[in-house]
Amino acid sequence: MKAEIIGIGTELLLGQIANTNAQFISEQLALIGIPVYYHGAVGDNPQRLRQQLEISSQRSNLIIMTGGLGPTKDDLTKQTVADFLNRDIVTDEQALEQVLQFFKQHGKSMTDNNKRQAEVIEGAEVFQNTNGLAPGMAVTVNEICYILLPGPPKEVKPMVQQSVTPYLQHIRPDQKTVFSKVMRFCGIGESTLEAALEDLIDQQTSPTIAPLAKEGEVTLRLTSFATNQGQAEQEMSAVVNDIQSRVGQYLYGWDEDTLEHVLYQRLASLGLTVAIAESCTGGLLSSFLTRLPGISDVFRGAIVTYTNEMKSHHLGVSRETIEEYGAISEQTAKEMAQGVQEACQSSVGLSITGVAGPSSQEDQPVGLVYIGIALPQQTVVKEVRVGGQREAIQHRASKLALFYLFQQLQDE
Amino acid sequence: MKAEIIGIGTELLLGQIANTNAQFISEQLALIGIPVYYHGAVGDNPQRLRQQLEISSQRSNLIIMTGGLGPTKDDLTKQTVADFLNRDIVTDEQALEQVLQFFKQHGKSMTDNNKRQAEVIEGAEVFQNTNGLAPGMAVTVNEICYILLPGPPKEVKPMVQQSVTPYLQHIRPDQKTVFSKVMRFCGIGESTLEAALEDLIDQQTSPTIAPLAKEGEVTLRLTSFATNQGQAEQEMSAVVNDIQSRVGQYLYGWDEDTLEHVLYQRLASLGLTVAIAESCTGGLLSSFLTRLPGISDVFRGAIVTYTNEMKSHHLGVSRETIEEYGAISEQTAKEMAQGVQEACQSSVGLSITGVAGPSSQEDQPVGLVYIGIALPQQTVVKEVRVGGQREAIQHRASKLALFYLFQQLQDE
Repeated sequence: MKAEIIGIGTELLLGQIANTNAQFISEQLALIGIPVYYHGAVGDNPQRLRQQLEISSQRSNLIIMTGGLGPTKDDLTKQTVADFLNRDIVTDEQALEQVLQFFKQHGKSMTDNNKRQAEVIEGAEVFQNTNGLAPGMAVTVNEICYILLPGPPKEVKPMVQQSVTPYLQHIRPDQKTVFSKVMRFCGIGESTLEAALEDLIDQQTSPTIAPLAKEGEVTLRLTSFATNQGQAEQEMSAVVNDIQSRVGQYLYGWDEDTLEHVLYQRLASLGLTVAIAESCTGGLLSSFLTRLPGISDVFRGAIVTYTNEMKSHHLGVSRETIEEYGAISEQTAKEMAQGVQEACQSSVGLSITGVAGPSSQEDQPVGLVYIGIALPQQTVVKEVRVGGQREAIQHRASKLALFYLFQQLQDE
Repeated sequence: MKAEIIGIGTELLLGQIANTNAQFISEQLALIGIPVYYHGAVGDNPQRLRQQLEISSQRSNLIIMTGGLGPTKDDLTKQTVADFLNRDIVTDEQALEQVLQFFKQHGKSMTDNNKRQAEVIEGAEVFQNTNGLAPGMAVTVNEICYILLPGPPKEVKPMVQQSVTPYLQHIRPDQKTVFSKVMRFCGIGESTLEAALEDLIDQQTSPTIAPLAKEGEVTLRLTSFATNQGQAEQEMSAVVNDIQSRVGQYLYGWDEDTLEHVLYQRLASLGLTVAIAESCTGGLLSSFLTRLPGISDVFRGAIVTYTNEMKSHHLGVSRETIEEYGAISEQTAKEMAQGVQEACQSSVGLSITGVAGPSSQEDQPVGLVYIGIALPQQTVVKEVRVGGQREAIQHRASKLALFYLFQQLQDE
């Protein structure tokens, strides 16, 4: 099967909303091994939708449409597809019952246009809408399966999971399925990672290896086509081992792991608490940790110092250090980490000082960042250069700080 | 001009990311009056991209592509478009210089594949990338304009605003253009705002009025089609005055204003400094302020207290207050604001304490937040209920804190 997803709605083309339906459906199809080759979006315009259907039916045999099933005049998907397929529109009794119930329950009188929501294409398999009024449907003509879904993501998601993927698995059984595993790296750039793995990426058949740069981190997605999880695991294990032997020191997690979560787990398992001293990241590092529920088990607090007086007064950084080495220096980062560790009575102190830009500071270049890690037995400082503009530097520096602490605790 | 936007990248078709570039670019094109009729996405596959270009060039005369300009082997957009247009690929010296500088600055040696990022299609107008290495470009063949942009949204957005829309306005002058004005509100919900302006929104012709809820704030976009700015301003002024008379107390800014920026300006003009005490927002409020360049003129620092000991020790909140009223209370918020004002020697202290969830705390419900504002002459505390899940609560509470301080300073 070759799938294609078409979003229908002028609001997409005006940029009022992002086409998150296409993302969600793609992800769900990938999980059951149906490759998606195209996404498209057209407005509420029957002529252009019809032209798109002519193109899509030449190249795909599963065409999933979202949007345009509602009660208003610009909801034209059903009629356009029915015309394209030379099918009639009929009322689905179960869907009509649901519409009538809805209006009764809400004590409102039903307007005539709402009845249209209960109409479906003749001969279609109907998918119940548990979060709205317009049902979805699937109709197969000339071995091409056309699926019509509502537009609101809150209606699409349950319908896809509860009805559409089971339906697709039913009409094409015994198919190999995609299994994928994500490896998450920090402290290494996308091109360096790729250069280190070039031969593996070039040779790839199954699993395939796809690198993706995200803000402050890089992921590798390994994908296997297999009949079951065990076979997929087996295929992947040699490649995973090879990758780990080359760049394992930058690997922090798998699949849905986040840096803050793996750090939290490591701190908790070691029985350690942490406090943070921030300068150039201005609270962002702390906010990354605190978006995690339950972080209060290991997190004491943070002190954001935007003046040298605050660095001295709240973190005990000596005035001599600041005068001699500057606020952006290895020495200051070290004293900030030790200072916040003491001030907050935490087992670990983590500090950042650097130049977020746009201007250089103390003659130091934009992007220069020192990360201090005060552990129970020793204090280490990392010097890094971070690229990008102010917000990107703050973001990347914060991620690196989480990662270096995580890495350091591995060695403890 | 008829525009079409094509996202290129297998990660889109696998559903790993949503195509937010298509949304952003559509929105920007709408603002300069260029209609978008299609969105599409294809994988990192030259054959399918070429087929898509054949379709698109039949129906559109502005084809904007995003993605596939990076240094890796699956970045094939430039070569595919060049082949399609029978153009050569050449090195852009300025872009090459930028790549070389980047590696020099980061003290890394450049791998050969990175040089590819400085290559462009022969004869193209080159758009500099201020947030990454791969430049964008525009090339017009047979009256069809092809624009190639990088994939990462952080690179696409500034490039579109700084280079692409000015370029498009330059190549098609004398067009009736959309002029729009955005009014920015905080502290009022979308439906309340809409109800207060219902008659205006219903009657609208030109300007049109479109409300949009964003995280923690609501905007109204007024849009006029006009030949010049003066005509548009005239059309809008009566409506703007009417809106201000109804909901002006929630209006904090216009167009590209941000809460942190208007607050910064107000603090600076009053000659005041601020310090922040955070509990449930965990550094996020502080990070909102510090993403602003130059904020150090008015911002002293922040203290994030995740334990009662820290609230007492660093902010001077009395143990009796916490015992009697709890850490999530009007009284604690008040003492936190006054405490951070004193501890950081700032003219103003701003505090937040509340329940970000997912569980209730001290028998207080999720979403209950107290915002304390210690001014030179008085201290006020606002109690608010914020909806959503943990991250949304932290985000909205932080925005409200910025807004209430801004509002309070208006009355000073």
